[in-house]
Parts: sequence; structure tokens; C-alpha cells
Amino acid sequence: MRIDGLQYANWSEKIFRQLREGRVDAVHVTIAYHETFRETVLNFERWNRWFETYSDLIMKGTSAGDIDVARKTNRTAIFFGFQNPSPIEDDIGLIEILHTLGARFMQLTYNNQSLLATGCYEAEDTGITRMGKQVIKEMNRVGLVIDMSHSADRSTIEAAELSERPIAITHANPFEWSPALRNKKDDVIRAVTQNGGMLGFSLYPHHLKDKSACTLQSFSEMVARAADTYGVAHLGIGSDLCQDQPDSVVEWMRTGRWTKDIDFGEGSAAAPGFPAMPNWFQDNRDFGALETGLRDVGMTAQEVAAIMGGNWYRFFNENFDAQQP
Amino acid sequence: MRIDGLQYANWSEKIFRQLREGRVDAVHVTIAYHETFRETVLNFERWNRWFETYSDLIMKGTSAGDIDVARKTNRTAIFFGFQNPSPIEDDIGLIEILHTLGARFMQLTYNNQSLLATGCYEAEDTGITRMGKQVIKEMNRVGLVIDMSHSADRSTIEAAELSERPIAITHANPFEWSPALRNKKDDVIRAVTQNGGMLGFSLYPHHLKDKSACTLQSFSEMVARAADTYGVAHLGIGSDLCQDQPDSVVEWMRTGRWTKDIDFGEGSAAAPGFPAMPNWFQDNRDFGALETGLRDVGMTAQEVAAIMGGNWYRFFNENFDAQQP
Repeated sequence: MRIDGLQYANWSEKIFRQLREGRVDAVHVTIAYHETFRETVLNFERWNRWFETYSDLIMKGTSAGDIDVARKTNRTAIFFGFQNPSPIEDDIGLIEILHTLGARFMQLTYNNQSLLATGCYEAEDTGITRMGKQVIKEMNRVGLVIDMSHSADRSTIEAAELSERPIAITHANPFEWSPALRNKKDDVIRAVTQNGGMLGFSLYPHHLKDKSACTLQSFSEMVARAADTYGVAHLGIGSDLCQDQPDSVVEWMRTGRWTKDIDFGEGSAAAPGFPAMPNWFQDNRDFGALETGLRDVGMTAQEVAAIMGGNWYRFFNENFDAQQP
Repeated sequence: MRIDGLQYANWSEKIFRQLREGRVDAVHVTIAYHETFRETVLNFERWNRWFETYSDLIMKGTSAGDIDVARKTNRTAIFFGFQNPSPIEDDIGLIEILHTLGARFMQLTYNNQSLLATGCYEAEDTGITRMGKQVIKEMNRVGLVIDMSHSADRSTIEAAELSERPIAITHANPFEWSPALRNKKDDVIRAVTQNGGMLGFSLYPHHLKDKSACTLQSFSEMVARAADTYGVAHLGIGSDLCQDQPDSVVEWMRTGRWTKDIDFGEGSAAAPGFPAMPNWFQDNRDFGALETGLRDVGMTAQEVAAIMGGNWYRFFNENFDAQQP
């Protein structure tokens, strides 16, 4: 089973066919960075049209059972998430509404301070806000997973502790391996995994050691070490594949409407666009190579299967339903 | 089984308890008259809170199976609908979005010309518009029932013919019995019922012969005649009960934001508010009296059961799911 914990591609029939070629059974796709509620609904609408048009390749996913259906019918199940809480605006009632529409992950912050928590690029991290505590409770109730990929350390640790259900870092790597601002320190990963949560390993070059030049062996050794440290059951892939996106999209991700200045985020003035993917992971057809890489550093077939999809399947199965009252 | 095809009460714990006292298994409730999409979502949110708070009395209904669950757990299943297409604004993609949120009925017009069809108060009825034809197709596809209660004759007949699935007049009576502008002429009722559709008999005084003074016997005789004329299988109740609403709400229903003048609709300057309900149907506890009235004019137990709920159950069961492609 192959499940990708995060992608933000410029979706097209080509990519849907590559998902099938790569035998990706499910993928969590980002449909909001800075979108308002109404703009997010437009993104749900766009996917509804794709589900109609490409019903032989993809289907909407809302529960782990949908992955079984997708596998049986040779399709990829698409699960929705937001990298920012902007879709709920300042209205806690929108959490259940968006869950009903199919949202299954929501980041409490995207780099900046939000109404809920502190993002990883802020100078000060004040932890979970008053509204943030209410939102965590409501997300737990309805089955919307808290994702802290772009959050600051204290906020992430507090979210893991406040949440009554496991949380996720869908796409990041250990800071120890590659000290990017977006990668996660040991105590942060421990707080998430010890509470039953998941870490999805990112293949976005800014999160990799040596960036685009990162080797499959280096990546695979990092995964194997993390399995020893945090337990293989809490690890998956969150490729952060941003395939075929024009550079205007990375600008939207980084600046939204919150600034008039240019913000290069993980990039720089010299390299403002999307970085080149490593040659061993260009698109969804390369998940097989990833498996081979993990086997080559000595992981067992069972461990590789857990990381490539089994763990996400279990996590989806336990965390997307409404909490029993 | 008791199913009410339309209510617009000022909902409260009191009314939820009366629904249980009256053993109402399911009710279609109006959550939009002139609301925009976002305002309609706020109304879904309000119901979500009520489903949490009064989970022992009510539950959300989206399919006929939910009525079975409600009966087993001694609750009332709440189904949602709009009396105007205002919630979809000018965006056909919102039809599937709103169906996903739980909408199961939508009127193509509320008294006035809409983007889709002509309302029953307009001087000229030009039938289904260009967008209206697209919307009917999409409503058919996703399983959102077309309700023509407040539409003009030609528009209603055209909708019944264009729609590939049965349509409904959820709340109105035969014009022949009580010649109100909102009641339906023979050819209109025939067009709807001959295509498998439903007529829900209204208990709103403006739709009754002698208004608030209408007798249960007169109402019951009208129902029995309609059963002879149109077939008992196509008839149900759509009480149009507007319990505990302040007069400001009837003003909202009638004028929304479309006029600066006062529009009295079915009322008049002398009687601008909600009319008094007939003494034999004051609230949800009176469905038993209605059954007795129908039996007293000679309808069989089986016929009465069909009209009180069996027919709506069958209709819900056949028309709320996505069309098989």
C-alpha cells in the first residue's frame, strides 16, 4: 500500500495517470494556503469536477475504507487538507462544515502567527491561543487532524499535549539531519510521536540534506535512524511534491495577501522559485525507487510497507471519524 | 411512520420535545429563504450545535435510512431544504457542495423570478431559464430534489418534464379546493405526480379553505378527493408549520433584501403577520388528530399510513442519492 501524506501539485490528467503508474493508493492534497472559506469551497468544487471527469483514475476519500475501494477499483483516493486555518476564518462552526465537505487535515499555522498558534518563522512562540484551544477540542470532536508541519516548536508540543487525539507533522524531516527552519527538533518529534502521532518525511529539497543534491541513500539512512529513535509505527511519507506548479504559486504560498513585501520563505532572492526535485524522486512514478532505497539501507519489507502506507492507513482509520461522545 | 414534508419553526427544545410527543419521525426543515451561500452555511452550523445539544431528541437526516435510525432511537430525523435557490448564488458547483452539507430539497423560485425559473407572484411566466436547465440536470445528478411549491405554473410543468427524477411540491393544496395563488391547479399537480413526484398538503391557513377556520373534515375530504384523482402514492403532508416565529420573520420571508417596499405576500396590510393555525393543528403534537380526520372521511389505515409518512419515506429513499452514471 502506498499513501502520500502531502502533495500540492498543479493537478492534471497527466499527474492523475502518474499516480496510477506509481500505484499511489491515497494522497492527502492541500487545497488551501491562504484561502478564505468561500475560496476553499471553490477548491472543493474544482475537485468535484475532477472526480466527475476522471472517475476512472481518482475518487474522493473521507475514510480509510475509501482507500480499500480505491485499491479494488484501481484508483487513487484523494484526501483534503489545509496548510493554514484561514478556511475557518474566525468561526469555529466552520470546522464541522469543512469536515463534512471532506477536510481531514488542518495546519494550525502556516509559518506566521495565526488566530490559533505560532508559525515556525515568527520570532516569538507564545503557544496555543485561547481560540486555538477551542479549535483543537472541536477538531478532535469531528475528526479533523491537527497538522503542525509549519508551526513553531512550543506551539507544536502544546498542540500534541492538548489534543486528545494523535496529531501529525505531515511533511518535515528531523532537524538533526538537515537543520532547516521547517525541519523538526528531537523534542518536537517526540512530543508528536509519543502521543500516537505521525511524522511524514518530506522530499521537498529545502527539507533535504544537500537540498536537490540529496542522495537516496542519505534520505533512506535518515528514515532508518528515525525508525530506531521514534518507532517505525509513527512514520510515513509526506512528499510535499509540488509538481508542475509555476513560480507564481510558490509566491502565493509564501505571501498570500498578508504582506506587500516579497517573502522568500525557504527560498532566497537568488532562488525564488520551486527548487528542483532530487533525481531519484521526480514525480509519483518514483515511489518504487523510494521503497528500494529503504530496503537497501537494511529496513525489512514489513518496516518499508509500514512507512510507505501502512502507518498512514492505520492513522486515517483511527482519526477521521467523529469522536464517540 | 410520520414524516412532515416542510416546516419552518422557530426551533427550540420545546418544539423538539413536541416533535417527539407527536411521534414525528422525520421533518424537512427550511434553512434558507433569501440567504446567500455563507448565510446558509451559518444555518447549517446552528443546526450542528442543536444536534450536539439535543442529541437525545433530534439527529441529522441525509438518507431514508436515517429515518430508521431515528425511529429505533426515539428521535426525529431533520432533513434540510431551501425555499429559494439563493444559497447557490450563480455557482452551479455549490449544488454538490450544499448536497454534501445535507441539503435535500431546493425550490427553484420563491414567489419572484429567480436565475432558474419564474415564481408564482410574477405577472409573466417564462418557464425554466438557461441556467435553470443546467441546475435541474445537476440537482438530478447529485440527488437534490426540485421543489416547485412557490413557482409559477408553466415553470413547474416544465421542471417536472425536464427533470429526469421525480420532483416535489412540498407544501401546497389543490387550487380547486381553495383558490389561493400559492395553491396548485389540476394540470400542475398532474404534471408533478404523473412523473413520480409528490404533493405535500399544507396546513398553513392561507392555503386552507376558510383559512384559520378551515375544518378538519373539509381538509380531510380534500385529501381523499386528491387521492382519488392523483393516486394516493403521490401524496403526503407538508404542514408549513411556522411555529413560534415572530412577525419579523414573515417579513423576511416576503421581502428578503429584494425590495424596499412592504410586500404582504399571502397576507395583507390588515393582517401582515403569521395567521393563526386551525384549532385542530396547532403544533407537532397534532399529527394524531390529522390521522383520525383522514380515517373519519373513509380512508383506509393503509392509505392514511402512506399519506402520513410512507410515501415520503419511499420518495426520500429514491431521490436523495447520487444518480448512477
